[in-house]
Amino acid sequence: MTSSDRGRELASRARDGDRRALARLLTEVEDRSLAGEAALRILYPEAGRAHLVGVTGAPGAGKSTLVAALVGEARKADRPAAVVAIDPSSPITGGAILGDRVRMQAYAGDRDVFIRSMASRGHAGGLATATVAAAAVLDAVGFPLVFIETVGTGQSEVEVAAIADTTVVVQAPEMGDEVQAIKAGLLEVADIVVVNKGDRPGAQRAAAQLRAMLTVGAQHDRAAAAAGRPTPKRPDVLLATAATGDGVPELLAALDRREASRRGADGGPGRDPTRLARARAQVDGILGERLLARLALTARAAPMATLYAAVAAHEIDPYTAADRALEGLLARGSGPDARP
Amino acid sequence: MTSSDRGRELASRARDGDRRALARLLTEVEDRSLAGEAALRILYPEAGRAHLVGVTGAPGAGKSTLVAALVGEARKADRPAAVVAIDPSSPITGGAILGDRVRMQAYAGDRDVFIRSMASRGHAGGLATATVAAAAVLDAVGFPLVFIETVGTGQSEVEVAAIADTTVVVQAPEMGDEVQAIKAGLLEVADIVVVNKGDRPGAQRAAAQLRAMLTVGAQHDRAAAAAGRPTPKRPDVLLATAATGDGVPELLAALDRREASRRGADGGPGRDPTRLARARAQVDGILGERLLARLALTARAAPMATLYAAVAAHEIDPYTAADRALEGLLARGSGPDARP
Repeated sequence: MTSSDRGRELASRARDGDRRALARLLTEVEDRSLAGEAALRILYPEAGRAHLVGVTGAPGAGKSTLVAALVGEARKADRPAAVVAIDPSSPITGGAILGDRVRMQAYAGDRDVFIRSMASRGHAGGLATATVAAAAVLDAVGFPLVFIETVGTGQSEVEVAAIADTTVVVQAPEMGDEVQAIKAGLLEVADIVVVNKGDRPGAQRAAAQLRAMLTVGAQHDRAAAAAGRPTPKRPDVLLATAATGDGVPELLAALDRREASRRGADGGPGRDPTRLARARAQVDGILGERLLARLALTARAAPMATLYAAVAAHEIDPYTAADRALEGLLARGSGPDARP
Repeated sequence: MTSSDRGRELASRARDGDRRALARLLTEVEDRSLAGEAALRILYPEAGRAHLVGVTGAPGAGKSTLVAALVGEARKADRPAAVVAIDPSSPITGGAILGDRVRMQAYAGDRDVFIRSMASRGHAGGLATATVAAAAVLDAVGFPLVFIETVGTGQSEVEVAAIADTTVVVQAPEMGDEVQAIKAGLLEVADIVVVNKGDRPGAQRAAAQLRAMLTVGAQHDRAAAAAGRPTPKRPDVLLATAATGDGVPELLAALDRREASRRGADGGPGRDPTRLARARAQVDGILGERLLARLALTARAAPMATLYAAVAAHEIDPYTAADRALEGLLARGSGPDARP
């Protein structure tokens, strides 16, 4: 059986509800193997129906607990739900440290919940590409709700949150200075801000401060709009206590309203700006990978290694090295000239 | 005056000690402008002498205070020092939130200290490329010590730490679970681990635990080495209190020893593995940028937009879209075929 045949078989079994095949398929997709590619070519046209919800926030804000609570709430209405949890992980071993083993236990035996941990590092085509591909598989095999959980501190994690249909930023009431700075960046990708741990002292005040800040922002927006300047989106602010479930039904309802409104506003297939950005991330990620593979093939290893060594020795500058590699690539087969 | 002329003039003035020209030049380099490129082509061959020290760690570990203390220690011996501080920042405005304004104040008037904040997001050629380029400029204009300070939580930030000659991972004695997971990834890039806030309860114990963990690791390493398996590097563990300066002279001495040993072990220009990795990040970053620019030019905007829209509408899969774009690029000028 060829890799492609294997991918097609895994796709077919995953679509028929085989969860072990689905898990194996996600590994293939994440590894960007030929089998994964073959499966995605089949499944991708069947995706596009799920609501992709990004959930992000600083370490300790309670993202995992909130996602678990949202899944529980969806299950009360018998709605299937999947989770892609992106773990900060070792750059060398690439392993997901906070595995899905522990978190899976609450839903062991529930076939309509699927939780997947993904390493945040070591994705050839980029983390966004790998995540969107995994979400497309879960979408195609029939999960109407897919949560993408990321730690919102790094560039790539924020990019991943931004390619979801709806992005929820979770924050705890009390945060340090550095976390505030992270948050300022996060707020710009938020559709909904959840002040979690709503039973703690200061939670009401934190929510009120955020709302006040956003109201001032909204006033600026109106002035900017009147002057014809572009205005950023302003997120809703909700209070919740993920650990007790308080505020979680309201959050899921808010997510559903967002999705209904997105579908209503959708100007037709391929017009939704978030989905366009997601498609673009996919195509560009694969394209970048293909170009690098082609480069390695065309330029062969030796001349590139010589170029790197010449740059490391400061004999030539990196622009000159890149120009030579590019000439090699576009001349197809002649390889870069590696003389210093 | 052309952009290139401007870049050459800025390079020349920066080399002559003009700090305002240096600041402007770093902006050009960070923006990847033509002026920045022209300057870097001149300055790059003059770089390669500085010791690049990466300083990373979870939010709140005290990285900034430690870097400030190290700069102060270097100044006692009249050694010039530069800092590139990578700030977690807005993905939309791209602005550095924790600016260098506050931190510069302690060294206002000291011409031999230069502190530069850099946004962590929005770098076309990648954060690593932008950081290495900035460090090369500071190196070329005469700073023998360049600290690169990053928040060690995202993929790109860890990559940046890993391209320094020596990487210091800073940690506070008490850390949560999620931070522990981040740390496990960070430890693998560390040459030196500093347990900061050494005057707090638990600091001695945290350092002892780390040393014990690394000793067990070292025993495994010896077994692995005996069996011919590859072994990871094991970092040194130091205790310091950045706020009081305790342990800082010892840390700077340890850094100097590392650098002397690196130079001693260097198998000649272009042989040092860290410097090779750094050169490779530079060349690949610029190359990726050039390829994308070429793609935009060759494929023209319209067909790529049509491809993205077809993928967003799930009419074609992203692999097929990437294949068509690639054909367009390599056929030079014919553009990708955008039929769904």
